Amino acid sequence: MEAKEYRIERDFLGEKHVPVDAYYGIQTVRAMENFPITGYPPHPALIQAFGYVKKAAAMANRDVGNLNESLASAIIRASEEVIEGQHNGEFVVDAIQGGAGTSFNMNANEVIANRAIEILGYEKGDYMRLSPNTHVNMAQSTNDAFPTAIHISALKLSKGLQNALDAVIDTLEKKEAAFDDVIKMGRTHLQDAVPIRLGQEMGAYRRMLERDRGRIRRALDNLYEINMGATAVGTGLNAQPEYIKTVSEYLAQLTGLPLVSAKHLVDATQNTDAYTELSGSLKVLAINLSKMANDLRLMSSGPKTGINEINLPARQPGSSIMPGKVNPVMCEVVNQISFQVIGNDQTISLASEAGQLELNVMEPVLVFNLLQSLSILDNGLTVFRKYALEGMTANVEHSKEQVHRSVGIVTAINPHVGYEVASRVAKEALSTGRSVKEICLERGILSEEELDEILDAQEMTNPGIAGKRFME
Amino acid sequence: MEAKEYRIERDFLGEKHVPVDAYYGIQTVRAMENFPITGYPPHPALIQAFGYVKKAAAMANRDVGNLNESLASAIIRASEEVIEGQHNGEFVVDAIQGGAGTSFNMNANEVIANRAIEILGYEKGDYMRLSPNTHVNMAQSTNDAFPTAIHISALKLSKGLQNALDAVIDTLEKKEAAFDDVIKMGRTHLQDAVPIRLGQEMGAYRRMLERDRGRIRRALDNLYEINMGATAVGTGLNAQPEYIKTVSEYLAQLTGLPLVSAKHLVDATQNTDAYTELSGSLKVLAINLSKMANDLRLMSSGPKTGINEINLPARQPGSSIMPGKVNPVMCEVVNQISFQVIGNDQTISLASEAGQLELNVMEPVLVFNLLQSLSILDNGLTVFRKYALEGMTANVEHSKEQVHRSVGIVTAINPHVGYEVASRVAKEALSTGRSVKEICLERGILSEEELDEILDAQEMTNPGIAGKRFME
Amino acid sequence: MEAKEYRIERDFLGEKHVPVDAYYGIQTVRAMENFPITGYPPHPALIQAFGYVKKAAAMANRDVGNLNESLASAIIRASEEVIEGQHNGEFVVDAIQGGAGTSFNMNANEVIANRAIEILGYEKGDYMRLSPNTHVNMAQSTNDAFPTAIHISALKLSKGLQNALDAVIDTLEKKEAAFDDVIKMGRTHLQDAVPIRLGQEMGAYRRMLERDRGRIRRALDNLYEINMGATAVGTGLNAQPEYIKTVSEYLAQLTGLPLVSAKHLVDATQNTDAYTELSGSLKVLAINLSKMANDLRLMSSGPKTGINEINLPARQPGSSIMPGKVNPVMCEVVNQISFQVIGNDQTISLASEAGQLELNVMEPVLVFNLLQSLSILDNGLTVFRKYALEGMTANVEHSKEQVHRSVGIVTAINPHVGYEVASRVAKEALSTGRSVKEICLERGILSEEELDEILDAQEMTNPGIAGKRFME
Amino acid sequence: MEAKEYRIERDFLGEKHVPVDAYYGIQTVRAMENFPITGYPPHPALIQAFGYVKKAAAMANRDVGNLNESLASAIIRASEEVIEGQHNGEFVVDAIQGGAGTSFNMNANEVIANRAIEILGYEKGDYMRLSPNTHVNMAQSTNDAFPTAIHISALKLSKGLQNALDAVIDTLEKKEAAFDDVIKMGRTHLQDAVPIRLGQEMGAYRRMLERDRGRIRRALDNLYEINMGATAVGTGLNAQPEYIKTVSEYLAQLTGLPLVSAKHLVDATQNTDAYTELSGSLKVLAINLSKMANDLRLMSSGPKTGINEINLPARQPGSSIMPGKVNPVMCEVVNQISFQVIGNDQTISLASEAGQLELNVMEPVLVFNLLQSLSILDNGLTVFRKYALEGMTANVEHSKEQVHRSVGIVTAINPHVGYEVASRVAKEALSTGRSVKEICLERGILSEEELDEILDAQEMTNPGIAGKRFME
Repeated sequence: MEAKEYRIERDFLGEKHVPVDAYYGIQTVRAMENFPITGYPPHPALIQAFGYVKKAAAMANRDVGNLNESLASAIIRASEEVIEGQHNGEFVVDAIQGGAGTSFNMNANEVIANRAIEILGYEKGDYMRLSPNTHVNMAQSTNDAFPTAIHISALKLSKGLQNALDAVIDTLEKKEAAFDDVIKMGRTHLQDAVPIRLGQEMGAYRRMLERDRGRIRRALDNLYEINMGATAVGTGLNAQPEYIKTVSEYLAQLTGLPLVSAKHLVDATQNTDAYTELSGSLKVLAINLSKMANDLRLMSSGPKTGINEINLPARQPGSSIMPGKVNPVMCEVVNQISFQVIGNDQTISLASEAGQLELNVMEPVLVFNLLQSLSILDNGLTVFRKYALEGMTANVEHSKEQVHRSVGIVTAINPHVGYEVASRVAKEALSTGRSVKEICLERGILSEEELDEILDAQEMTNPGIAGKRFME
Repeated sequence: MEAKEYRIERDFLGEKHVPVDAYYGIQTVRAMENFPITGYPPHPALIQAFGYVKKAAAMANRDVGNLNESLASAIIRASEEVIEGQHNGEFVVDAIQGGAGTSFNMNANEVIANRAIEILGYEKGDYMRLSPNTHVNMAQSTNDAFPTAIHISALKLSKGLQNALDAVIDTLEKKEAAFDDVIKMGRTHLQDAVPIRLGQEMGAYRRMLERDRGRIRRALDNLYEINMGATAVGTGLNAQPEYIKTVSEYLAQLTGLPLVSAKHLVDATQNTDAYTELSGSLKVLAINLSKMANDLRLMSSGPKTGINEINLPARQPGSSIMPGKVNPVMCEVVNQISFQVIGNDQTISLASEAGQLELNVMEPVLVFNLLQSLSILDNGLTVFRKYALEGMTANVEHSKEQVHRSVGIVTAINPHVGYEVASRVAKEALSTGRSVKEICLERGILSEEELDEILDAQEMTNPGIAGKRFME
Repeated sequence: MEAKEYRIERDFLGEKHVPVDAYYGIQTVRAMENFPITGYPPHPALIQAFGYVKKAAAMANRDVGNLNESLASAIIRASEEVIEGQHNGEFVVDAIQGGAGTSFNMNANEVIANRAIEILGYEKGDYMRLSPNTHVNMAQSTNDAFPTAIHISALKLSKGLQNALDAVIDTLEKKEAAFDDVIKMGRTHLQDAVPIRLGQEMGAYRRMLERDRGRIRRALDNLYEINMGATAVGTGLNAQPEYIKTVSEYLAQLTGLPLVSAKHLVDATQNTDAYTELSGSLKVLAINLSKMANDLRLMSSGPKTGINEINLPARQPGSSIMPGKVNPVMCEVVNQISFQVIGNDQTISLASEAGQLELNVMEPVLVFNLLQSLSILDNGLTVFRKYALEGMTANVEHSKEQVHRSVGIVTAINPHVGYEVASRVAKEALSTGRSVKEICLERGILSEEELDEILDAQEMTNPGIAGKRFME
Repeated sequence: MEAKEYRIERDFLGEKHVPVDAYYGIQTVRAMENFPITGYPPHPALIQAFGYVKKAAAMANRDVGNLNESLASAIIRASEEVIEGQHNGEFVVDAIQGGAGTSFNMNANEVIANRAIEILGYEKGDYMRLSPNTHVNMAQSTNDAFPTAIHISALKLSKGLQNALDAVIDTLEKKEAAFDDVIKMGRTHLQDAVPIRLGQEMGAYRRMLERDRGRIRRALDNLYEINMGATAVGTGLNAQPEYIKTVSEYLAQLTGLPLVSAKHLVDATQNTDAYTELSGSLKVLAINLSKMANDLRLMSSGPKTGINEINLPARQPGSSIMPGKVNPVMCEVVNQISFQVIGNDQTISLASEAGQLELNVMEPVLVFNLLQSLSILDNGLTVFRKYALEGMTANVEHSKEQVHRSVGIVTAINPHVGYEVASRVAKEALSTGRSVKEICLERGILSEEELDEILDAQEMTNPGIAGKRFME
């Protein structure tokens, strides 16, 4: 290690070599040494959110008179570069780290400080000019800056997810209309039940996802409360009331999000239920998506020896050995994303439960999982829609034929003959392979005219008792 | 098995002996044979909910003219006895069972049918008079009756839980006021941080639980939509529109809950996200309670070799071997309830994801866990409040003394001297055991007057920079 | 409350009324008041295990000279009654409780003490004669007696589970033979793949469960180490080395289990990984069973509009509304048991992680879930075998026909013509509905004789390239 | 897109542009388009394992006479480059993907094919010379190549983890010796219990981790069975018995792992319990590590207002705002790694349960989580040892003083005076602050000489009743 490739930085624990070109500094170097865990850097959305936090803090500190114009303006400019993603490569601390995010925050403080020092015309590392702690982190603690950055990044990514979900809902609504008169066998317990329309099934998926949309939207409400000014434990030590008010307003303005200062800063600093709630709503979405993907895989199974009611677009040869095979890969990736999101929720829950007293030091692993869940659901929903849902088609004739082959339609004669008689008809139909209608006629249970009306499959897919007039 | 102890009942699979005095019938006997799993019967709240469902269905079927007055009135009277809990001992199918709840539903149909048959003056088992399927289950399927019963029972139990939560929140609010001026050391990473007030901590718990209250309330919204009339797969086969409207109105009236008919019955029959959402909100509550219980256990640790800031009421001798030991047992039971609820949520999530096509056949295990979570949280919160929170006291002097012994207060001199100087003072204080004030004075860093103002612990627990005037 | 219905008992916290006929005492009464949580009593296997522990301890204390013959013999006799289940109704503390099992242990101490006092000819509650703490609990702490009882009860229940698993494996082995030449379509991604024999599938289930058997057996190994004599924190305070040796030997002898004294008593007192390991092995079993149950439900789906390759015995009418419907209820209950066991493992994991320093106080909820998992798996496997597996039959003709309708057999021509040519054949077969053979012949790709050999479905289910001689 | 930057490749679904310099081909391009999910590439260990698989397959296919020397040798050389990591940048399909790993396998087939084509002197994409499917994938399916690669990569990473675990165990053994006579207060329920030695606690951690070592080692046993030659569904279609034998032997030889051909290839192709078992053993390790990290954080809490029995090395300034604060960051990162591993196990369990019939298509997400767990535990244990455990020191005097301040030592007088008398002494000591010895003397309960012997803290940390002679 040659002298000129490195600069020396110091803190109260000693000194470290820092690569001479790096914007990050000694705290970041320590963190890299301490936490070579996953190899994953922080999510870009988190880096950007730190840019917003530092910019807003500098503006607020300037306004309340604690930071002079020259330093403030250099910090603001450097923060803007971070917001634009220009320094993403300088954010090098591992996604999983000890220290409650202090290493994330110090990485941001150091990058912005050194870039600001450059802007002021000095050499990187000359912290007498502008200090990562005293100036960039002024009136802040990791314990307010980091949670605020989590809120902002989660809210930003949620927008993308919400748009992706909206588009899926729209697509399902179109399918609901397109498949409205496709009659198919309804199945419960995977056993033939009674007829249903494919459009009704699409509508059920749509409704389910609409509830997910609402759940996610409601879960975001608590994230609008940020704890800037809480400082170390939420008491606001070293942060003036004017600063707290101003920094929150600036952040709302810069991010375009309806952020407000939390009503109880001690609460907002130590509790992480806003994250577990959001993750929980993503878990419900994941469960729903997995159920839906499973259904589509079942309905497209075959083509010759399965259910084969629908066709999903062929996206890639399905097998390295079986020629011509095409698999429902877009559904399968949705299942896997769902499992990942559910696993992430597990990690988030554990991390949340591990909060102690004034702080939850497990936030790094929590935010790693939360932002990942948001991103992969967004990505997954988008390709699911484009490559599976939009091009899905129905096998209309095959589905109709299956309905007529089944015995499940016997349910419709129930109100006319009672469950016990209907059971005997069903048993005979199943064991002999003869049709329900045939047996009813032969036994004189109902007339042909009555049966034609009662056993109309299309009619069976709406409430009402066909042939109610037969009952006295 | 003597002839007179048993009656013979038949269905399309054959015949079975039923104890002659039993109100339940052949389907229940089959279920008992098939599912000797947990030994736990259904939750009483679920039994009661089935009573409401069957009563309302009989009333609606009567009103629309499908059930004659005499049969209807016998079914209604029998259902009322079920609602009152008179037949709980007849509900004998296991809480975990195959068949999507058909055995629960048939158990209810049989008990009510046989009791109604008795009311009509006939012998139990004389299903020609009144049939469990044709009459008690008229226009119903397990697939609408059971989900509706789940909704009703979950909503009923949620009321109890909400009341218990309200009472805890009230208690915390009182503690917040009572402990408002109890200064203690704030801790992050379990390391001495900066002062805080015990009342602020109580307020943080209160706020957290208030969010839980809101989450649970919102999660109940989807449960008000019931799917009576959906019948087998949600298409409403064999259920007339007038019936669907009427039965929902009767159920709302009988239960006092704002129940309405679901907008999309196919969706409401196959999707279970309303349950996973509710369970998810209980999981967040559990995580929060566990964090809070952990904090109280930490703060009451000792008494001699722990933190010892608070005292929890002595509820029982803590040890079979260590005389005089008293343990925080009420917190510990809250932790365990939380773990149970989180585990239950796991089961519920798995069950929910396993829905297929028109039905989720895993609902029995789902409802078992959901109702258990609601009950044990209600019970746990109640004893936690009565036996731990209400009698909790603060060790005021000890807590204050700890603040003064700590070095964390050095943070307050930050804005006046910068992070780097403050770090050197802290390091010296920690290594020598001398006080922050002493060192600052000796080094001429700040005057005694300034230090007295800056290091005022009470002041430190509110936003603002004591001695801001010292800054230029 | 009349005086004569209750006796008064006292401890260092005060006094309580105890029902005059109760064998339990004041500590149990306190626990009932503190922990009205689930309403579930301890598992009978746990009660029995406490009986063994108390009996062995009395024998060892007598042998080393700390307990006189008369007291010892009364305690032993009372413990034997507990082992036989005569006092199960006296074990009334809730399954979920604070206090690390102290209430379980004191409930046992009190029941045995009072019964022993009776045996000695005195009145219940006369603890001067024989004390629950001083005599029944002599040289014990909850922290060794309770874990030891957990080990014994888990080991006892594991035997039942292992037997149930053995029987399932035997049944599968028979099915493997019975279905050895049943050709059916193999499916990957739920899409038609290449032929397989139903017997091979049965063999795959068998092998999987054999690994589960091995995993469970290995997981039990650590449970043979018990920590009797560890007392409060594992240091053995108040327990003589001779006692420790003797009590472990007696326990092994009484229970018939190869129990030994743990090598490191501090470790054995505070760590719970033996339980999480066992629960983990049950979770793997549960996952495997759920996969297998899902497969059987898929293969038995239909009968008319599903896969319909196998038939499961009809165990109960499947629907309250659909006559003649029969559902795979025994598979469904296995799925639900699996979900319950996986959820229980979640709770156990959380409880295990929450151990602190010398003890894991969360053991009550842990043992509740662990013993439940063992029991319900045992019960579930037994009915699954008897009511689903043993009577399962194959639809031989239908399965064979499906193979011949499918295009998947095209894979077999791969080695002879290359993947690319085979792909074109497959594509044409799927789009035109013509057979693979027909297309190959028409295109002159292979001769009829070659095709007959290559496309032999039976041959395809074994390793080897039919017609390898065609390759140069 | 200019013609010269791209080449055109075709498959039975159509054609795609492939970057002209890319070794990957059309299937990889399709996968990149279909699966833009996490942005994470496959784990390097998985890529390497594919190199081994393809090399061994080429050698075996050559040996059995299905692949000519020239093609075989080009494939082998290309595979060796993959093993060496030279083409890691060409493995571009997302870690989470549909298709059961077909895209991983085809990515490997294409990279190796194109590199081999180059080696043979032709242009990339000239698959008439050498085909990814026909030659590189010869006698393989994704369904055997991919699981085999999972086994190899998991086994390779496990070696690293086992070494890291061994080193931690060694370190703990040294600490056990070093701290053997450090007396400190034992705590149960976080409440003062009885004395223990810090070395005993270290020994308890060591023993726990030794069990983890054994668990992991045993869990690897099933991974030594690989399913090469199983091809599509485990029946070995298109794979000759000689090939199956040879390829397994080559793989064992190339990897240095004791790999053998699985006894039942259908089982080995569809079941994933070997992975869930390994993940389960990692989960138990994670739970244990988290408990241990929690203990160390508790014991190092303070320094002034906590327990403060041990000191962990200062690794980085703990706070961006609180000067001089040092946090237990290496423990915290271990907690977070543990939470991640537990969450990963959740995902793995869900993926495993989702297997259907002949295949588990969820393996991509499964392997992503499994390999991540192995890596982060390896990394985490290594830094935990180096930066936390090795430099840990004890606060000997403070710990001893705490023992003497506590009342817990009263337990030692139990065998001499009975639990009831001891309780009264304890209660008085706690309420008055006077010492146990003082009270016993004053009350004439025991003599000074007796008390000095009984209350010897060092003695209390070993089994045995000090002063047994006092008992009659």
